[in-house]
Amino acid sequence: MTFTYSPIGEFRTPYRNVEEIPKIFGLAPVAEGAIHIDPPFEEGLLDIDRFTHLIILFAFHKSTAKPLQVTPPGQQSKRGVFASRSPQRPNAIGLLTVELLRREGAVLFVRGVDVLDGTPVLDIKPYLLHLDCRPEARSGRAEEDR
Amino acid sequence: MTFTYSPIGEFRTPYRNVEEIPKIFGLAPVAEGAIHIDPPFEEGLLDIDRFTHLIILFAFHKSTAKPLQVTPPGQQSKRGVFASRSPQRPNAIGLLTVELLRREGAVLFVRGVDVLDGTPVLDIKPYLLHLDCRPEARSGRAEEDR
Repeated sequence: MTFTYSPIGEFRTPYRNVEEIPKIFGLAPVAEGAIHIDPPFEEGLLDIDRFTHLIILFAFHKSTAKPLQVTPPGQQSKRGVFASRSPQRPNAIGLLTVELLRREGAVLFVRGVDVLDGTPVLDIKPYLLHLDCRPEARSGRAEEDR
Repeated sequence: MTFTYSPIGEFRTPYRNVEEIPKIFGLAPVAEGAIHIDPPFEEGLLDIDRFTHLIILFAFHKSTAKPLQVTPPGQQSKRGVFASRSPQRPNAIGLLTVELLRREGAVLFVRGVDVLDGTPVLDIKPYLLHLDCRPEARSGRAEEDR
């Protein structure tokens, strides 16, 4: 059983290479960028500017390895890939919450991008507090809770 | 350009039909269920119980329509599908934040499922406060902010 998806648009970001993406830990990314939605999907953006934050699902299109365990940056030991946000994973789908700054036609200007320029966007969902905001969430290490 | 993904496991939930899933608005789902990870991927769960909350990406495998505009339950007018959480969407990938109750081998017992029993799971990510928790997020309607 497989599922096949086609992009609805792509990210425009300041980053042409993975090495250019700032490595910040424990803080949300702040770089501004844009999401260019392909014209056939523009109709799907109606009322999107009602929301201040969006969740973007995208393809880690440059990821090729599919390790089951990874060593996160700044960590000493391996952990399961499903306990990490590594772009190298069995189904290399990325997830990013961004702030919607404004919409201009089929372009969404957003804050909080830390993905490569040209990254294919698969889906956009409104960020809903009652579903997505879990301030009680904790991780086992203090530095990951910040 | 397309991207193809194979499930890493599936949901076990109380719901055999869409009609059985409680329609609650403005609250997170509370039903308990499980995620059965396929044996080849169990190694990817190492240390996952370090996290209290997980983000699950899954396939809305019963969705066939791909509307660009939808009328959300309880709403009067259409909005863009990317301004909604409708399961009917161009790339029918679902997103659910769940509470991890415990892990037993390749089975994750979780709280907060509102998907069909047998739903294919595509990815699991740890919920990280600094990336995923945005208490400042707002929507244009008070009832959506709750």
